[in-house]
Amino acid sequence: MRQDVSLLRIPGPTPIPPSVERAMTQPMIGHRGEETKQLIQRIKPRLKKVFGTEEDIIFIAGSGTGGLETAVVNVANSNDEVLVLVTGSFGDRFAKICEAHDVNVHRLDFEWGEPVDVERVREFLINNKQIKAVFMTYCETSTGILNPIEEICRVVREESDALTVVDGVSCVGGVKTEMDKWGVDVLVTGSQKAMMLPPGLTFIGVSKRAWETIDQNESRRFYFDLRKYRDNLAKDSTPFTPALSLLFGLEQALTLMEEEGLENVYARHTLMMEMTRAAIKALNIPLLTTDEFAAPTVTAVKPDNFKADELRKVLKEKFNLSLAGGQQKLKGEIFRIGHMGYCTPADVLQIISLLEIGLHELGVAVELGKGVQAAQKVYLQQD
Amino acid sequence: MRQDVSLLRIPGPTPIPPSVERAMTQPMIGHRGEETKQLIQRIKPRLKKVFGTEEDIIFIAGSGTGGLETAVVNVANSNDEVLVLVTGSFGDRFAKICEAHDVNVHRLDFEWGEPVDVERVREFLINNKQIKAVFMTYCETSTGILNPIEEICRVVREESDALTVVDGVSCVGGVKTEMDKWGVDVLVTGSQKAMMLPPGLTFIGVSKRAWETIDQNESRRFYFDLRKYRDNLAKDSTPFTPALSLLFGLEQALTLMEEEGLENVYARHTLMMEMTRAAIKALNIPLLTTDEFAAPTVTAVKPDNFKADELRKVLKEKFNLSLAGGQQKLKGEIFRIGHMGYCTPADVLQIISLLEIGLHELGVAVELGKGVQAAQKVYLQQD
Repeated sequence: MRQDVSLLRIPGPTPIPPSVERAMTQPMIGHRGEETKQLIQRIKPRLKKVFGTEEDIIFIAGSGTGGLETAVVNVANSNDEVLVLVTGSFGDRFAKICEAHDVNVHRLDFEWGEPVDVERVREFLINNKQIKAVFMTYCETSTGILNPIEEICRVVREESDALTVVDGVSCVGGVKTEMDKWGVDVLVTGSQKAMMLPPGLTFIGVSKRAWETIDQNESRRFYFDLRKYRDNLAKDSTPFTPALSLLFGLEQALTLMEEEGLENVYARHTLMMEMTRAAIKALNIPLLTTDEFAAPTVTAVKPDNFKADELRKVLKEKFNLSLAGGQQKLKGEIFRIGHMGYCTPADVLQIISLLEIGLHELGVAVELGKGVQAAQKVYLQQD
Repeated sequence: MRQDVSLLRIPGPTPIPPSVERAMTQPMIGHRGEETKQLIQRIKPRLKKVFGTEEDIIFIAGSGTGGLETAVVNVANSNDEVLVLVTGSFGDRFAKICEAHDVNVHRLDFEWGEPVDVERVREFLINNKQIKAVFMTYCETSTGILNPIEEICRVVREESDALTVVDGVSCVGGVKTEMDKWGVDVLVTGSQKAMMLPPGLTFIGVSKRAWETIDQNESRRFYFDLRKYRDNLAKDSTPFTPALSLLFGLEQALTLMEEEGLENVYARHTLMMEMTRAAIKALNIPLLTTDEFAAPTVTAVKPDNFKADELRKVLKEKFNLSLAGGQQKLKGEIFRIGHMGYCTPADVLQIISLLEIGLHELGVAVELGKGVQAAQKVYLQQD
């Protein structure tokens, strides 16, 4: 039985809702036919709401990193000077992608587990007027930080003409996102996180202002050339064969999000975060991040009296429960609980209850049910 | 009822077998966990056989064009001189991708509907020793030509040190392919053609010789950097989140191909081609290509007494049967019948029988059943 039970609680890929799975098995259609055109017409206006923008959202067959590279090669020319705000391994990846394209990268590195310090960004921009774009991570998946991108974007606008480029891969769809209001110029996300789909689709929102830069950008690009996608999307089409089965699923995932209501989706993620954090605190295990900047989609835990990877191992073996480990400099130091997409408060209670058993198995002194109780109390305290 | 019947007979995307659809709805798994590692281990040796190579086959989340660009940016540096053999719109695309990366392109253009003239390639290479790579199309989807890539690769080896790069998107998996024996250095295909999967996955085979060039290549690339995929694949992993649901489907698609036997799969495609061509000839409608270079996966028809797009329209309206039209300079001039992947001789008989009704509806003088009879005879004449 265990082999047929899978509890996937990493920060993506995330479980697929049954109705989304069923939607993905619709009969295949021609990518240049009327069915695809109508599918795109139906999806277009609904995706905008998830991004909080009036502009069309572009989708490309590829993983999230493909979307991040699309942002880089369309916004920056080689030798342009850009600023990358690094709060973990995905900020680091943004910098590496820029460097792979010979973009001149200035990095502001922040402690892993801390958010971007907005005043350091302001100071840097005051002294570096040549910066063409600022790259940042909304939810830094590797640490569970939700960076204050609204505030960062405001400061970037106040101090420069730089474009703001945001990696929203592990939170858009699960966390309030207002591209237009916040002045985000380019926002990237992926399918396999809060969007409740398998990996293989990346989404890119682009502001009017960013299009001006993109139209003049001379970077070498073909598959990732956003202009081709924009021009085709205006005709409800795509320049290259789209990942049709994932688009079938997307339509149903959007239906689920709309039926729940986007505000309720966001509130559910916040609640799951609060329940998780309350439980971990009640169990006296240190959290990596502060409450103020904790991500509603993923919680990083930094134990001091047992090994993170041993807990992960026992939970995997006993319950087929997958939690994520640490990356790069946090490898072995933390474990991460994904609570996003197709995940409910009930699932959080299950995770915590299993986690308590895992701690018990490791010989850690733990009062069984204490974490669950704390999470239950948070659940019951909702308005 | 019509709305729920879909006959997709374009040269990709192609219909998905029910068991592949079911395989794709397996519960999602972690991309860094043991399940994914084992999945990759199981797939790796089986993909090699489809490509006819001892080397590992790399897979990337993206459409076929992404795979073609991957070949370009890994094999060619900007300002390298390359030769592109253009027999239709996909050869033209290969040239455009090279140009987008500032690669110095020499084109040999052939009549659309004709194959590559191997002696022209030889002559060009004798006079242009600086050519670093030769790009060619195995099945040119836009015209239904199967180019003689074995012969072309032999001539390229005889006359130069250039690498051979082959777009096999619309035939690999349906047509005999022997990368190693034929001296193909890089071979690209996509998931949504003969591989019987939805679009969103591209596959790339690379020869030992090509890796030497790729390792030294300085092109700007990140997501499409083949070195990252090779190094991870050696550990049964991927550098970026793979398109897991498509990999689930791939495993089952490979099972279907192995159960039938690859040689039988290829023979079935040849038979479907011969049945289709015999039927079209019996109906006195001109074929675009000669028998000698006709592709086993797609047949292009160039009517002279009715409009191709009117036939397509009536077949779509009456039977929800999708055939493809012409592209670029062949727009409106031809229609194309896809007979690849999840398609059988029985399906070909159905297509022809509906096509005859479509002709009748257009007022074209047609003896009903004549095309079907010709196809039936081909079927019965098999050994």
